Amino acid sequence: MDKNQFRIESDSIGEIKVPVDAYYGANSVRGAANFTITGRVIHKELIIGLAEVKKACAISNFEAGIMTEEVKNAIVQASDEIIEGKLHDQFIVDPIQGGAGTSANMNANEVIANRANEILGGKLGKYDKVHPNDHVNMGQSTNDSFPTAGKIAALKLGARTLEELKKLHEALLEKAKEFDPIIKMGRTHLQDAVPIRLGQEFHGYSSVIKRDIDRIEKALDGLRVVNMGASAVGTGINVDTEYLKVIVPNLNKVNNLGLVQTDDLVDGTNNLDGFAFLSATLKTAAINLSKMSNDMRLMASGPRCGFGELNLPPKQAGSSIMPGKVNPVIAEVMSQVAFNIIGNDMTVTMAAEAGQLELNVFEPVLLYNLYESIETLGNGVATFRENLVVGVKANVERCKQLVDGSVGPITAIVPHVGYKNAAKVAKIAIETGEPVRELVIKEGLLTEEKLNEILDPFAMTEPGIAAKHLLDK
Amino acid sequence: MDKNQFRIESDSIGEIKVPVDAYYGANSVRGAANFTITGRVIHKELIIGLAEVKKACAISNFEAGIMTEEVKNAIVQASDEIIEGKLHDQFIVDPIQGGAGTSANMNANEVIANRANEILGGKLGKYDKVHPNDHVNMGQSTNDSFPTAGKIAALKLGARTLEELKKLHEALLEKAKEFDPIIKMGRTHLQDAVPIRLGQEFHGYSSVIKRDIDRIEKALDGLRVVNMGASAVGTGINVDTEYLKVIVPNLNKVNNLGLVQTDDLVDGTNNLDGFAFLSATLKTAAINLSKMSNDMRLMASGPRCGFGELNLPPKQAGSSIMPGKVNPVIAEVMSQVAFNIIGNDMTVTMAAEAGQLELNVFEPVLLYNLYESIETLGNGVATFRENLVVGVKANVERCKQLVDGSVGPITAIVPHVGYKNAAKVAKIAIETGEPVRELVIKEGLLTEEKLNEILDPFAMTEPGIAAKHLLDK
Amino acid sequence: MDKNQFRIESDSIGEIKVPVDAYYGANSVRGAANFTITGRVIHKELIIGLAEVKKACAISNFEAGIMTEEVKNAIVQASDEIIEGKLHDQFIVDPIQGGAGTSANMNANEVIANRANEILGGKLGKYDKVHPNDHVNMGQSTNDSFPTAGKIAALKLGARTLEELKKLHEALLEKAKEFDPIIKMGRTHLQDAVPIRLGQEFHGYSSVIKRDIDRIEKALDGLRVVNMGASAVGTGINVDTEYLKVIVPNLNKVNNLGLVQTDDLVDGTNNLDGFAFLSATLKTAAINLSKMSNDMRLMASGPRCGFGELNLPPKQAGSSIMPGKVNPVIAEVMSQVAFNIIGNDMTVTMAAEAGQLELNVFEPVLLYNLYESIETLGNGVATFRENLVVGVKANVERCKQLVDGSVGPITAIVPHVGYKNAAKVAKIAIETGEPVRELVIKEGLLTEEKLNEILDPFAMTEPGIAAKHLLDK
Amino acid sequence: MDKNQFRIESDSIGEIKVPVDAYYGANSVRGAANFTITGRVIHKELIIGLAEVKKACAISNFEAGIMTEEVKNAIVQASDEIIEGKLHDQFIVDPIQGGAGTSANMNANEVIANRANEILGGKLGKYDKVHPNDHVNMGQSTNDSFPTAGKIAALKLGARTLEELKKLHEALLEKAKEFDPIIKMGRTHLQDAVPIRLGQEFHGYSSVIKRDIDRIEKALDGLRVVNMGASAVGTGINVDTEYLKVIVPNLNKVNNLGLVQTDDLVDGTNNLDGFAFLSATLKTAAINLSKMSNDMRLMASGPRCGFGELNLPPKQAGSSIMPGKVNPVIAEVMSQVAFNIIGNDMTVTMAAEAGQLELNVFEPVLLYNLYESIETLGNGVATFRENLVVGVKANVERCKQLVDGSVGPITAIVPHVGYKNAAKVAKIAIETGEPVRELVIKEGLLTEEKLNEILDPFAMTEPGIAAKHLLDK
Repeated sequence: MDKNQFRIESDSIGEIKVPVDAYYGANSVRGAANFTITGRVIHKELIIGLAEVKKACAISNFEAGIMTEEVKNAIVQASDEIIEGKLHDQFIVDPIQGGAGTSANMNANEVIANRANEILGGKLGKYDKVHPNDHVNMGQSTNDSFPTAGKIAALKLGARTLEELKKLHEALLEKAKEFDPIIKMGRTHLQDAVPIRLGQEFHGYSSVIKRDIDRIEKALDGLRVVNMGASAVGTGINVDTEYLKVIVPNLNKVNNLGLVQTDDLVDGTNNLDGFAFLSATLKTAAINLSKMSNDMRLMASGPRCGFGELNLPPKQAGSSIMPGKVNPVIAEVMSQVAFNIIGNDMTVTMAAEAGQLELNVFEPVLLYNLYESIETLGNGVATFRENLVVGVKANVERCKQLVDGSVGPITAIVPHVGYKNAAKVAKIAIETGEPVRELVIKEGLLTEEKLNEILDPFAMTEPGIAAKHLLDK
Repeated sequence: MDKNQFRIESDSIGEIKVPVDAYYGANSVRGAANFTITGRVIHKELIIGLAEVKKACAISNFEAGIMTEEVKNAIVQASDEIIEGKLHDQFIVDPIQGGAGTSANMNANEVIANRANEILGGKLGKYDKVHPNDHVNMGQSTNDSFPTAGKIAALKLGARTLEELKKLHEALLEKAKEFDPIIKMGRTHLQDAVPIRLGQEFHGYSSVIKRDIDRIEKALDGLRVVNMGASAVGTGINVDTEYLKVIVPNLNKVNNLGLVQTDDLVDGTNNLDGFAFLSATLKTAAINLSKMSNDMRLMASGPRCGFGELNLPPKQAGSSIMPGKVNPVIAEVMSQVAFNIIGNDMTVTMAAEAGQLELNVFEPVLLYNLYESIETLGNGVATFRENLVVGVKANVERCKQLVDGSVGPITAIVPHVGYKNAAKVAKIAIETGEPVRELVIKEGLLTEEKLNEILDPFAMTEPGIAAKHLLDK
Repeated sequence: MDKNQFRIESDSIGEIKVPVDAYYGANSVRGAANFTITGRVIHKELIIGLAEVKKACAISNFEAGIMTEEVKNAIVQASDEIIEGKLHDQFIVDPIQGGAGTSANMNANEVIANRANEILGGKLGKYDKVHPNDHVNMGQSTNDSFPTAGKIAALKLGARTLEELKKLHEALLEKAKEFDPIIKMGRTHLQDAVPIRLGQEFHGYSSVIKRDIDRIEKALDGLRVVNMGASAVGTGINVDTEYLKVIVPNLNKVNNLGLVQTDDLVDGTNNLDGFAFLSATLKTAAINLSKMSNDMRLMASGPRCGFGELNLPPKQAGSSIMPGKVNPVIAEVMSQVAFNIIGNDMTVTMAAEAGQLELNVFEPVLLYNLYESIETLGNGVATFRENLVVGVKANVERCKQLVDGSVGPITAIVPHVGYKNAAKVAKIAIETGEPVRELVIKEGLLTEEKLNEILDPFAMTEPGIAAKHLLDK
Repeated sequence: MDKNQFRIESDSIGEIKVPVDAYYGANSVRGAANFTITGRVIHKELIIGLAEVKKACAISNFEAGIMTEEVKNAIVQASDEIIEGKLHDQFIVDPIQGGAGTSANMNANEVIANRANEILGGKLGKYDKVHPNDHVNMGQSTNDSFPTAGKIAALKLGARTLEELKKLHEALLEKAKEFDPIIKMGRTHLQDAVPIRLGQEFHGYSSVIKRDIDRIEKALDGLRVVNMGASAVGTGINVDTEYLKVIVPNLNKVNNLGLVQTDDLVDGTNNLDGFAFLSATLKTAAINLSKMSNDMRLMASGPRCGFGELNLPPKQAGSSIMPGKVNPVIAEVMSQVAFNIIGNDMTVTMAAEAGQLELNVFEPVLLYNLYESIETLGNGVATFRENLVVGVKANVERCKQLVDGSVGPITAIVPHVGYKNAAKVAKIAIETGEPVRELVIKEGLLTEEKLNEILDPFAMTEPGIAAKHLLDK
């Protein structure tokens, strides 16, 4: 594109130079100049979402009898090109933009109008056959088309992230099976507690991810409710009643996302709580994934001066100065993704809260953060599964050795000797280093035979027949 | 209680002085001394929740054949007294406490043990008939009893807050009906947009609250899943299998909350995501309520130099220096409650993320914040409804006057004359102050008759038959 | 106080019942009824701060010649009583209140007016000799007296917290000295790195606290700038110019806090950034303290299945089910305090951001959170120092043993043999468990003599003469 | 670059394919594969910062006598090329990466080593003349070079943002002068209060920005303290003592940033509080800028149904559906930038808190967010100043009209007639719409002459001689 040759366009602000072969127009150029914030452009899926909306609107306006077939066809073709990935370099506006997405919407309107004009034999920047506002934006406002496109993008990105979470869930379940026989020390407060099976731990990880999947799915479902037909403020001004009936069904034909028209168009235009809620479910997943990653890092701490229970797959040299060092880099990046999502949720929260009256104008920064959260969650989970979970190995010997040397099993004796007696033995064991088993026998609290039964490591990792000794007192 | 006379108790740390007539014991005294953080004590509903758990456990251990009827009866009676509100002054530990709630749990164990001993004719501080650990805590750990009590408290507090939200929803719906005929200016970007009916706005408010109710209900349902039987690390060590079968049913007999035993006790002990998710739904509601409150403040701005569309019920003199000033204090407090909930959610998030291995030890600060969020949301919504929503009045004349004087209706003309022509008229109207209607006629764009039809204010607040003029071109 | 007998007061809203012997009046009663949010009352230091302001104002108005000596003296006496801790039960309004603190300010005005009336022989509720607005509030608005009182309270609370941080700094320095000879394993990424001295670690902790002290001190200094004289909107309407000159000097005579009058009264009334900045410095300290606490918990993990390098002072039995367990409860509560402060900072941020035009009406919720942050930080640090830092012990043997068994020292060999050779040895060492020292000799990389020099543990914890071998290549 | 032809490199993980003409190597390729999170690469200024560090290190190692002049010269030349902007496409690692920046540091080491090899006549991927670890990284670890480069980048980006804030401060001061004579209604609680001059408001805006500049400057100064020489864990292992003396002076010769070596290298390596504090000052500025933007939007609300006091420069057509609409898009984007910075601060906070023992491995996500905050703050402020502040116009007539019609001036009468009398008049005025002035005369409270003096609008915007009437009573 020749950025040094210009055509002149004019809008209500005045005349402005537009690169001569640009498909975008005056509004896009102004928007790009006003908002040089992040140095980036709006998300690819948001561009496609806008094109899908424009396509469905053209079809609907045609079906309502207020748009010619010729114009409709040209808009549909132009939109389809964008949906296929063409013309994306014509979207030049920053993701953080004032105006509630008007710049993004007008960028779409202008690119489609110019391309449609071209298709119909017209010239760029003329808008005589297809006009950005009168035709491409017909029956719409930024205030319904932009949020709807925003939801479409979120749904598509969300689907991929859900897939990754489901794969992680599966991988964790498999590991739970693989690790089921491995007995290791359970820890609470980072202090030795009682034995647990490594498989039980991994099953726990799978269970919490299952809940996250459910929550994110529900939140995504909430985004299927769109406000197409609301136009400027939710009252549907300038919206044809025939169009109103077919717009959402037509949009579903375009993208097959199961969208539903809200039954309160004003609410649908005022509030961004659906996005905020999705962000909150992503945040909840981030919490769980960061906790899980931290556990991996703790269990893999060492190799010699830490817990040393897990061996994470070595993925890269850990240090530029310390040879042989392998760090839990995949777990670390998972937590960083989580922190970033939690911060993004705060921005989403503030943006959602700041809406006023008929519109929340802070949707662009909300979407900018939300999309990053959805995508990086999926990316983080993918690397976490591929590069850590599927390859993680248990250090079985070390696990056994720690259990055997620990004071933890004293807990299993409590129902048989009472808390106070057990506490005394525990104290001596910790101070002297003497094995619990021997101390219990020495103190005459239980017979060796009874102890063998009680201290069976596997039995200690399941509920059992508790002692009845307290009844006898 | 005589705080100057003491008995000596001893635990694994050593001897410690306990007020002679205290029902609490050594662990409570140590906990209270170690954690002098907020100067407050744990929530009343958490105390009751702990007592409900202890009662159900005693019954279950008795049914499992590992507790005598006498001890069971004494524990049940002591617990019932706490459930009825007695002995609450014996709970002396700070809500922000280390130890994952062990201090709170032991405070309950000690109070119940001492009271049960007393019932059975024993003396305070002796624990010979009923022991805090061996009997009251039988089959439990802090790590299952405390989270379960925490959920019980959240469910009860949540039920009341839901009630308030439902009342608010109703009140908003009623107002929506009352205000349905009132046409006013819609605003986007705080700029005049197009007419809307005040009733439509209030209906929008009711719709978003409806979603909040649904979300909070779902999140509360998630808290019905409890980990009783998990004991220390989720493996159920020291838990009798008979007890395991009856503990949750017995707990439901006590409090009728529809609790369910988790099918993954390890996960149920590791993770606090259920609480974090509830907090997130409260945060989402806070976002919506703050936005709504801000709208009220904007529409009530004035009385003479603002929007002046709403008259909020005057609830108190607004100023210590400016006579006659009445401020939107109820709306202001609603937003403050929202800000506080959003901050609390951040603390909940950090606490939930920080769990390690078999336990999240940061549950106390999580509950401290969560309970404040649930309660203040209910309290804020109650005052918002009673002192603002039910009494808010529309300034009908002012609303009409603003619509009549505005340029906004120009939008309704666009489908008939095109965006560009309309924009020209709008620009002149804004600059000169001339009425849109007259300009349109003067410019020869539409006939007066046609204009009357198009600019019917009520029609402008609904979708309609859009113009077909574009077809003719 | 007899809460069943009432007097009738009236204000611009109408008549209202006030308990017959209450010192508060109509405004307080309305405020208390409108805002039943937290169930608490405003902070004791805020009450005292308001009384100090009222006292200084009375003196200043008297000096300006617009208040009689008799009224001045009565207000001063009433205020002094509150400063001494009397009449605090007459402050009945919730800390989270609408109205930008008007209820709190009027509560102070009414209590002082009634008490001053009484001193002058008048009756409660009459206000004929001393009027809450005309006299006690003379020359003020809520909008200058409340923020100023808010700063006074923050400065006093902050001073105590600074003291605690300074004591912690000292305690850490002492421990740094005590622990200086102890060589232990340094860890990065929770993986064994290279040796470090425990004293170096504790010195690091002291250094970061030093920065926190500096930052909090600077932020507190910012709060010494007050807007007394701003009255309603910062223009000083109704403020006597003589009063304006003496009010801040007089306030300094009352509380000796080194307050300064802002040179931009409008800014001083609009913005709460000074509070937000203090909160941010508290948050930064919270970050550092939580990290430090986590380190303690990690190093104390064990006793047998963890790092086991530190022994924290046992402060309470760790578990209701596991005998002998001692948990790092003090470190845990420190992190919880930190999480709470971080959440509070979010609320402070939202409140500060939400100001509009001449006033930020969200100051009450800001102060509610800020005061909790300041106080709990001080309380948390106090217990952290007393119950953890001063008593923490190093497990010297264990520290040595871990260093000796580790692969970490391989790093010290790099400058002598190159990264690649060293990495090879490290890999073999980790896989086979063979000691690094022996492998290096076996591989013929360095002589035993040279190795002894290089692997001197103390030398490894300081910069040294790096090898020149690379020059020879 | 030919991405289809590869060379084989090997590291401690094994062999790996590297594009044949890539300057990066095995570590970079692994890092890029492990962390496909954001789809972006590390910040340009971070790349340059790393190159500056590597250059200064080579010089310092040479001066210490442990690097040959030939190698030094080659490293310096390669680094200079990167500093000048070359080879940036060879930096391929994601800004959110595990490993505490090891991938970024090794990416720099590899690019410089390969380029230096090339300069010395060697081949890509051979590392025989200049080795990434042994030479380019000599005397360093990721743990000192990466944080130092991170600070260098922050300082440079911060300087530009400070410039923008200073320009904004100037622009606001100029506007304060221009608007000084314009009397308008002051509002508190969005309710009419008392008159204020528009210039006073803008002066207030300038004052708060002044404080932000000071705070950010102080925080940036804190980042001048670097930990070069700390190497792996702050003990300076493998760091030559001669190098240690000259490294920071040499670094200052490279970039002239006034860097200082920390006197506690362990602390300097453990803690990221300096970054967190900078982020907090940016957040505080964001709070103030968002509040200011909101004020602009409020005062510009209208054009006919709002406050209408300000005319913001029209920068783009406001609506795709509503012709003539001009929205406050620049103010809107400023608030969005603020929300984003506040969210970023949360991520920074979590990352800074999560450090463990000798290192905080979460620095990459911290820097990713911090740099975005610094830059977007500068960008937002730039557009806010250029496109809003310098061009904003007062609607003088409207301002005057609102003051004249308001009840607000009643406040000025209080010192002359008492709060209660004034409140009565205010109530009647609000209810009936009668002008305050006439009511006061009608009620016989003050003479017309006295009233003219009191109600002089300009006088009402300054402190004055308050009435002495209360003395006479």
